[in-house]
Amino acid sequence: MAAGSTYGNIFKVTTWGESHGKGIGVVVDGCPAGLSLCEADIQKFLDRRKPGQSKFTTQRNEDDAVTILSGVFEGRTTGTPISMLVYNKDQHSKDYSEIASYYRPGHADFCFDEKYGFRDYRGGGRSSGRETIARVAAGAIASKILQEMGVAFLSYTRSIGPVSIEPSRFDAAEIANNSLYMPDAVAAKEAGDYLNQCMRNTNSAGGVCECIVTGLPVGLGDPVFEKIDANLAKAIFSIGAVKGFEIGDGFDAARATGLTNNDAFCIRDGKVQKKTNHSGGTLGGMTDGAPLILKAAFKPTPSIAATQQTVNKAGEEIDISIHGRHDPIIVPRAVVVVESMAAITIADALFANMSARLDRVIDFYKNV
Amino acid sequence: MAAGSTYGNIFKVTTWGESHGKGIGVVVDGCPAGLSLCEADIQKFLDRRKPGQSKFTTQRNEDDAVTILSGVFEGRTTGTPISMLVYNKDQHSKDYSEIASYYRPGHADFCFDEKYGFRDYRGGGRSSGRETIARVAAGAIASKILQEMGVAFLSYTRSIGPVSIEPSRFDAAEIANNSLYMPDAVAAKEAGDYLNQCMRNTNSAGGVCECIVTGLPVGLGDPVFEKIDANLAKAIFSIGAVKGFEIGDGFDAARATGLTNNDAFCIRDGKVQKKTNHSGGTLGGMTDGAPLILKAAFKPTPSIAATQQTVNKAGEEIDISIHGRHDPIIVPRAVVVVESMAAITIADALFANMSARLDRVIDFYKNV
Amino acid sequence: MAAGSTYGNIFKVTTWGESHGKGIGVVVDGCPAGLSLCEADIQKFLDRRKPGQSKFTTQRNEDDAVTILSGVFEGRTTGTPISMLVYNKDQHSKDYSEIASYYRPGHADFCFDEKYGFRDYRGGGRSSGRETIARVAAGAIASKILQEMGVAFLSYTRSIGPVSIEPSRFDAAEIANNSLYMPDAVAAKEAGDYLNQCMRNTNSAGGVCECIVTGLPVGLGDPVFEKIDANLAKAIFSIGAVKGFEIGDGFDAARATGLTNNDAFCIRDGKVQKKTNHSGGTLGGMTDGAPLILKAAFKPTPSIAATQQTVNKAGEEIDISIHGRHDPIIVPRAVVVVESMAAITIADALFANMSARLDRVIDFYKNV
Amino acid sequence: MAAGSTYGNIFKVTTWGESHGKGIGVVVDGCPAGLSLCEADIQKFLDRRKPGQSKFTTQRNEDDAVTILSGVFEGRTTGTPISMLVYNKDQHSKDYSEIASYYRPGHADFCFDEKYGFRDYRGGGRSSGRETIARVAAGAIASKILQEMGVAFLSYTRSIGPVSIEPSRFDAAEIANNSLYMPDAVAAKEAGDYLNQCMRNTNSAGGVCECIVTGLPVGLGDPVFEKIDANLAKAIFSIGAVKGFEIGDGFDAARATGLTNNDAFCIRDGKVQKKTNHSGGTLGGMTDGAPLILKAAFKPTPSIAATQQTVNKAGEEIDISIHGRHDPIIVPRAVVVVESMAAITIADALFANMSARLDRVIDFYKNV
Repeated sequence: MAAGSTYGNIFKVTTWGESHGKGIGVVVDGCPAGLSLCEADIQKFLDRRKPGQSKFTTQRNEDDAVTILSGVFEGRTTGTPISMLVYNKDQHSKDYSEIASYYRPGHADFCFDEKYGFRDYRGGGRSSGRETIARVAAGAIASKILQEMGVAFLSYTRSIGPVSIEPSRFDAAEIANNSLYMPDAVAAKEAGDYLNQCMRNTNSAGGVCECIVTGLPVGLGDPVFEKIDANLAKAIFSIGAVKGFEIGDGFDAARATGLTNNDAFCIRDGKVQKKTNHSGGTLGGMTDGAPLILKAAFKPTPSIAATQQTVNKAGEEIDISIHGRHDPIIVPRAVVVVESMAAITIADALFANMSARLDRVIDFYKNV
Repeated sequence: MAAGSTYGNIFKVTTWGESHGKGIGVVVDGCPAGLSLCEADIQKFLDRRKPGQSKFTTQRNEDDAVTILSGVFEGRTTGTPISMLVYNKDQHSKDYSEIASYYRPGHADFCFDEKYGFRDYRGGGRSSGRETIARVAAGAIASKILQEMGVAFLSYTRSIGPVSIEPSRFDAAEIANNSLYMPDAVAAKEAGDYLNQCMRNTNSAGGVCECIVTGLPVGLGDPVFEKIDANLAKAIFSIGAVKGFEIGDGFDAARATGLTNNDAFCIRDGKVQKKTNHSGGTLGGMTDGAPLILKAAFKPTPSIAATQQTVNKAGEEIDISIHGRHDPIIVPRAVVVVESMAAITIADALFANMSARLDRVIDFYKNV
Repeated sequence: MAAGSTYGNIFKVTTWGESHGKGIGVVVDGCPAGLSLCEADIQKFLDRRKPGQSKFTTQRNEDDAVTILSGVFEGRTTGTPISMLVYNKDQHSKDYSEIASYYRPGHADFCFDEKYGFRDYRGGGRSSGRETIARVAAGAIASKILQEMGVAFLSYTRSIGPVSIEPSRFDAAEIANNSLYMPDAVAAKEAGDYLNQCMRNTNSAGGVCECIVTGLPVGLGDPVFEKIDANLAKAIFSIGAVKGFEIGDGFDAARATGLTNNDAFCIRDGKVQKKTNHSGGTLGGMTDGAPLILKAAFKPTPSIAATQQTVNKAGEEIDISIHGRHDPIIVPRAVVVVESMAAITIADALFANMSARLDRVIDFYKNV
Repeated sequence: MAAGSTYGNIFKVTTWGESHGKGIGVVVDGCPAGLSLCEADIQKFLDRRKPGQSKFTTQRNEDDAVTILSGVFEGRTTGTPISMLVYNKDQHSKDYSEIASYYRPGHADFCFDEKYGFRDYRGGGRSSGRETIARVAAGAIASKILQEMGVAFLSYTRSIGPVSIEPSRFDAAEIANNSLYMPDAVAAKEAGDYLNQCMRNTNSAGGVCECIVTGLPVGLGDPVFEKIDANLAKAIFSIGAVKGFEIGDGFDAARATGLTNNDAFCIRDGKVQKKTNHSGGTLGGMTDGAPLILKAAFKPTPSIAATQQTVNKAGEEIDISIHGRHDPIIVPRAVVVVESMAAITIADALFANMSARLDRVIDFYKNV
């Protein structure tokens, strides 16, 4: 707490920047030396959260071109901190000047004023969705590390408002085909219709993002406070607008019984495996070899053009209507943010796990 | 990560102990000096998680009498670490000897063996529910601090299996009247019937715990990684058997719209307040002055007497049936654990928040 | 450890950058909101470590102009991270290309290669003296906070090679008058002569820096691991080339007796004070109200033009002579670095100390 | 800071206890699983700091028998926290009752009262030398890990008052032969005479402890804030009564020149090595393959029977004389404390270093 812009212990990420300041950036410390890395690796991730890709994302023209300022030499990471910077370009500060005078419902304006005495009211300041640029840039590095170790991510929009993915129609290949990142063309079409209706009503929608991680070694995470699921819960809940988090069956497990919820162990491919995966890939806070499955619930975009009641800084109750370029739904652009925070958390756990057994520590140093 | 038995930054809690070792303990560091504290303050909290209080909790005779070993002098905390110890008494190690040879479904046995090379197989070892004794002892101290600052907790069982509390029948006074800690006598009766049925079927049930915190100042928590909700998510998810976590409307927010989910601001009692509380008391990661509301989903007790399939350490698929004294439901005894972890997290945020504004820091030191 | 570029707990500093990368930067997180801050405040500090100010400092033309990228709005800090950036300009990468092939004595080249597998060999890379730009930029902020609280720093060169300041001739006003930052014009002249001789001999000199901090409240620091002196020791020893650290009488205390070393307490100006200050302002790890006095010993600049023996990457023993623009003495330019690291450490301790007493915590929140 | 009783990141040590409370203890978290460990391993270390072994140490009868309460199963560490407890027995609280009323010179009494509002005045409370029991118990574990990796420690008293070890007469075998732990029988005799004289004069002496660590891999520690020397500086300076710290030539390096201070590299035994070791085994914050050499200066025991001036809590200036059983010198009993803190710091650095190179991380997980 306090100094709340650093995340992670061994793989450590420090972000900075406001939506209408000079830029957004991140320092990634603790990345092992020798990872092949260039700006295109980062840009590829950033482009997944880029606005302006469909009518459901803001039409702001944010290039979000990233520069690597340190920590990479001759195409490889050196083991020293990797500083990355994205300048803010299309800021339109005038769009936001009015909101300095009142507290937007569903936003942190009031809390900022109470906590800090005043606030950078331009476009959400530090609480802007642009802050996630820094997370995604860091996540791109974590993902690249994990990829080299055989870990893969599958992340997508699981529901938008009332429209949910039917397991029977799940098609991973479809995710990249629609701007909502849904693994089902029919659902994507229905969700699009629902969002159109929200926009016509000057309203917005919520939704759920799911992330599945495969290829993890057994035993990542620790048995008590540093459970892998506890750290994922914090990581995902630290993303703005998240209101719920589940591992595996989540709240459905609360309605299950021991007999239906326990995953039986069996021998498959010569290894101990689980027959089912209600647990979502963790037991006792440690990865259990099955795919890690997490879900995050996002609230609807709080900035809506419809009339809302609020209070201004003079203490008067007023009616407001928030104009400007706002997505009617947060989830599709947040998919890569969820994946990034998961990747950062898992990379940290991977490194922490290396000293779990003395025999492996001794072996490691014999080869050094 | 690694060294995962310490939680918190300024108010820091370090737990230790296994179910069948010599005892369970906790060191609470960073407790301000001058808090009136004695063992009865701790014991009162511990008694809320004590087994053997109804037929739905294990009949083990665990006295769980706590000793304060340091940090309290002449009835008050001194500012130095408070070490607390509960000896293990009723250990029945023989009950657990068989489980050394196989992996219990729904338990961490397999993960322990893979991560550490072997495990303390007696009664769950470090992953036993007894580990929560340490959390509750620390939580008792955090709660006492918060109480002195006007913060209050209301924690209870919100659902057991299919039986949920109806908001219209919510009665806080009823919580202490039934051994399931439900705020509705009728629901408690129905839940009891359901649990009886589970027990007859050698099965177990899951459930949901809710915790409501009132009296918090506005602005606790930080805008990015150290959001109060993110830290609560980690705190609660670090409790064994938790599979889901929500703040405010949680997953329901994902199905809402901006118009229905945003909480309008108004002036009430001369202060800025919110008309509704869909957000559950946080905006942008900071407390917003409304009650903080969180829910945790617990999976069914994994230890069941019904036959299950698993694998033994020789790599053979076998059928097992777990006998011993196990609660058919985790939630009622976990209510005080959830409250404890929330209290620890909030106390930490309270202290961290003191340096948020320079003028307040300067004022503070003028009076020192 | 690991991820070793972040320092501090509540006032947290993360640095990045190599001498010949794109730039050097720092993120300062946990700075309270409301501090008046602009780039000139930072630049003033950076100019104190600027090269090219005398013949004893390198003639490199480093502008070291700092940009504040975030965390300041309308002239005041907002409570969010303050990112600062200094671009590298005068890089002359060609000057350093040869050193890629061998290990410079007294430098970290060999250790980098062994630890990370390769290194950024341009001008010292991450271990360059330019890394201290980031520390000084952060120190400027910490100093400004402390100044508003009545804390003052007096930092200077106490010795260069064999030339030491005589206490009887100490003149604080003289520090700013000579490029060696010595509080005695005669000693500065002698030290200058000594350095001229070193340069003629293609050799270099070591020295000692002293820093005196006044105006501190009693009780900063904690009794065990977070002693204020322990944190200062780490802070100062984390500066490159430091080989010794003392508080108060330091190693002289090891030759003293209890009678001569204990500081008697007395009442002066109506307050408990000490008659002497052998302790250097700390007792039991906490500030004791007397000036905090620390000394740091710096080794001689390792880069010298004289012939030295070393080993190249092919495993051959060779003779080398390091050319380029190197200061013959580190201390004068390090004075502001020592002051900066001390300021950062003390600011962190000031904020941490706010929750030491429950009555003060309660009072604090009554006024919020 | 705040919550200052935890040290280390991956190998994490949390201590608690006061000299006249119920006991002293420590929780060691992050110890790898599989280390053979029993109470005798710990006791052996504790006995090295035991009082009553010569006339220069207090005649208190402190058994200091340690109990391991958790984290060890079937003779091996399990990877979970190891809790160790030493009960206080010979407390003589009456001896100390008078000191409640005044501030002892050279002690932390005044600072405690100012910081926390009151203090546990019995025998130094948390600032007692007994606190080091916890450090030594943890150090015993760190040492055992390091021993299995081929790391060895040589720690001894280097000087007492004016009596210093002559390098030409250094004899490691002698250390265990005299109660002052000096590696020279003649010096030990002279130091004993000097201490006898101090005792006759109701006075006390200071001294210097040295610790030499061999067998370390190259590259432990990080280039910036987490330099191995910076962490050792903090670790050693966190021991009560330490006033100075040096690595290698320390303050002598400040009087040397580049030519005399740089260690030339050469090829010896087919490896890159240094011809000399002025650096004391670190370059750029990382171990360089040579023995790590550190020195700590301890002030004289502040508790002396001679008359001293001080102030009482009523604000009156008074004369006092401190009776009781106090060592006339701290160093000999502190030797094992210095070694312990060094071992803890190095173990932490060893584990942190495992993720420095991506190729080694990938190799590690291939074998898991």
